[in-house]
Amino acid sequence: MRVVDLIDKKKHGEQHTQEEIKFLISSLMDGTAPDYQIAAWLMAVYFKGMTEEETAWLTEEMIHSGEVIDFGVLTDSIVDKHSTGGVGDKVTITLIPLLAAAGVPIAKLSGKGLGHTGGTIDKLESIPGFNTNLSIPELIKQVNQINVAIASQTQNLTPADGKLYALRDVTATVDSMPLIASSVVSKKIASGAKNIILDVKYGSGAFMKTPEDAVELSRLMVNIGKFLNHSITAVITSMEEPLGRAVGNALEIIESIEFLKGNIKAGDIADLTYSFAAIALIQVGMYETEEEAKDYLKELVASGKALEKFKELIMAQGGDAEVIENYDKFELPTYKVKYESKKNGYVQNIDAYKIAYACKLLGAGRDRKTDPIDYSVGIYLNKKSGESVNKGDILYTIYSNDTEKTKIAQKYCDEAFSINENKPSHNNMIYKVIRAEED
Amino acid sequence: MRVVDLIDKKKHGEQHTQEEIKFLISSLMDGTAPDYQIAAWLMAVYFKGMTEEETAWLTEEMIHSGEVIDFGVLTDSIVDKHSTGGVGDKVTITLIPLLAAAGVPIAKLSGKGLGHTGGTIDKLESIPGFNTNLSIPELIKQVNQINVAIASQTQNLTPADGKLYALRDVTATVDSMPLIASSVVSKKIASGAKNIILDVKYGSGAFMKTPEDAVELSRLMVNIGKFLNHSITAVITSMEEPLGRAVGNALEIIESIEFLKGNIKAGDIADLTYSFAAIALIQVGMYETEEEAKDYLKELVASGKALEKFKELIMAQGGDAEVIENYDKFELPTYKVKYESKKNGYVQNIDAYKIAYACKLLGAGRDRKTDPIDYSVGIYLNKKSGESVNKGDILYTIYSNDTEKTKIAQKYCDEAFSINENKPSHNNMIYKVIRAEED
Repeated sequence: MRVVDLIDKKKHGEQHTQEEIKFLISSLMDGTAPDYQIAAWLMAVYFKGMTEEETAWLTEEMIHSGEVIDFGVLTDSIVDKHSTGGVGDKVTITLIPLLAAAGVPIAKLSGKGLGHTGGTIDKLESIPGFNTNLSIPELIKQVNQINVAIASQTQNLTPADGKLYALRDVTATVDSMPLIASSVVSKKIASGAKNIILDVKYGSGAFMKTPEDAVELSRLMVNIGKFLNHSITAVITSMEEPLGRAVGNALEIIESIEFLKGNIKAGDIADLTYSFAAIALIQVGMYETEEEAKDYLKELVASGKALEKFKELIMAQGGDAEVIENYDKFELPTYKVKYESKKNGYVQNIDAYKIAYACKLLGAGRDRKTDPIDYSVGIYLNKKSGESVNKGDILYTIYSNDTEKTKIAQKYCDEAFSINENKPSHNNMIYKVIRAEED
Repeated sequence: MRVVDLIDKKKHGEQHTQEEIKFLISSLMDGTAPDYQIAAWLMAVYFKGMTEEETAWLTEEMIHSGEVIDFGVLTDSIVDKHSTGGVGDKVTITLIPLLAAAGVPIAKLSGKGLGHTGGTIDKLESIPGFNTNLSIPELIKQVNQINVAIASQTQNLTPADGKLYALRDVTATVDSMPLIASSVVSKKIASGAKNIILDVKYGSGAFMKTPEDAVELSRLMVNIGKFLNHSITAVITSMEEPLGRAVGNALEIIESIEFLKGNIKAGDIADLTYSFAAIALIQVGMYETEEEAKDYLKELVASGKALEKFKELIMAQGGDAEVIENYDKFELPTYKVKYESKKNGYVQNIDAYKIAYACKLLGAGRDRKTDPIDYSVGIYLNKKSGESVNKGDILYTIYSNDTEKTKIAQKYCDEAFSINENKPSHNNMIYKVIRAEED
């Protein structure tokens, strides 16, 4: 078998055999296929696609290119949740303690965020002392003890995906459905969860621009899961404006704590958290209907059990749990500046990208994995879409450590808000849920 | 400008600017664009193509990536002929002395052949002492003295094409029209000729499988020539069976000498040589019609002037010109075995690939540039397509140095001949001539 022949085969739109996919990935890993051959193959895949079978075989080879976490007896009940990422998305942080409180074991591996705002790991690290550098044995042990653990993905999982992704990034071959699907699913399966919930976002700022594309990607991932004997549910959500009101690392943890305290009963964060959690409880067989599941979950918040679980998680990972009662324990910014609306009307939309850009400017994100992050800065949206606003009402608040940056951030935030007199219609956050079809 | 953005642009089928092509090639040459990015770009070009303008810019960048030969005052009259290569193709060898005898200066640079049989350089090197390692000043000097020179292309011409071709070869991106066209034309223009004749072959064994593809490639090359102020004529010829009767290095030189002696008046070699030569004389303005040109050319053969020019060429490059009168001066093979036809009828076709394969087996070709070649071996086709044959007539003769290899070669030769009772119709060798359109 020669790699050049496999490139030629894909170039002509033919389907690879499982042996061929195996050969490609092993040649990538042992270095016998140089990067330029893999790059040409990736571009051929971009143009000619892959069948579900091929994509599943590719996923399988990526999984077995490195370590696969084994939770032993817990394996079948472990849940993992993955999001393609969005501005202000703290649903992983609200969901994890809630599900753990419901008795569902959760093991979450997450990469450090690159981009305008931090990732889940960065947000949690804004809690003083919180340690996400768990080894795999430590992760397994903690899940067994308190049902929940979250670790920074530094382990040797799916190295083939790492290599492929690095190449895709510099060869304009990131936006290929089978390559995206195999990358996401291989990482989740190697992380050891049998039950996987994927938040697939669509919108101008997301990978998938249209809901149709998001459905196609979701079906592919769900079917690969089925092929590889894992249960995957994909939840397609729109990404038009920031999720919740807080954008920025510590600010998002505070908003998550407020949810867990029962102080946020409605809105996008509550809707999504309860929906994802209910889907998970159905997926593991605890409930039959979303309604029953949601009632139970709301009770876990109301009774303080979800918050208690979050406290346990913080303490288990060395964090200062006093932040829950005293937000002053977080690193504090020098400035906290409120901005007022200059007109009356309704908020029509808040441009997520502009808010994210302003946060990046303030220091909430990073370009390289080694860049420092300022946990204290961010933007709080005092008004969100659909809310009425009067001239003089506070629209948003900037948390900053630099007056010059504050001014520029204000400019972007002002641009982000569109306000006029018509009351906008409410859009459902969840577009569709894609489950593996029963045979 | 970033290479990844240019890959993305081509991936979406957009046209590059001249600046972008310049940037790509300079990044390739100075190593700032790694091979994997160029490979991905090549595959995107395979799928999305390039406009004539883009292809001309690419050609220009490849020309100027290395040395460009300058023939000074001779430049405008210099002729070069290029063939995409075919089994038994010795038309370059018959054409060069004929044109030089007609007063047209010819400078021919040729690569060493890779494949089943040797290239033009290898064939000429079968003449004892013939030296093709001319420096560029030596080449220019000889053309000024005797109107003709032929050198092995070892100089630093079009290094960008060399790099791109090496990558295309291992990434299944050889068969792209703009990449083929820019590669061929850049090499010819860098070799210094103003007037270029391209033999573009089509057929199952050629790069271009159909005459339509050959026309498309030809038009592209002719138009690039015009864009870059060079006169290119493309002659589209079919490649169904070996050209002439001899296949193998010394055997092909002998057949060429026979033509120059006036002993081969009809058939494919005579047809093609006179046609190409007539096209060249028209292109440089010596004649208006093919008929007049051919009459003159035939006279040059009949009078012995063409043969005399070949003798001059051999002597100028250190070869033993006595080979012309005494073929025993060539290296001789140990065995010369004649094979008889087992049936009566007409030769319908001779599979060029099988004959070439048999020659390779006997030692006439090479896989690596450093492999030795056996000049003495080859196959002589005593019968060609359209000729009648009786049981017991000699069909072909194998020239060999190994009895075992002779047996296997015989098997391939037997398979190559298809004979039945119907007289086949005669196909014209030249399908079409493509010239730059006048404005």
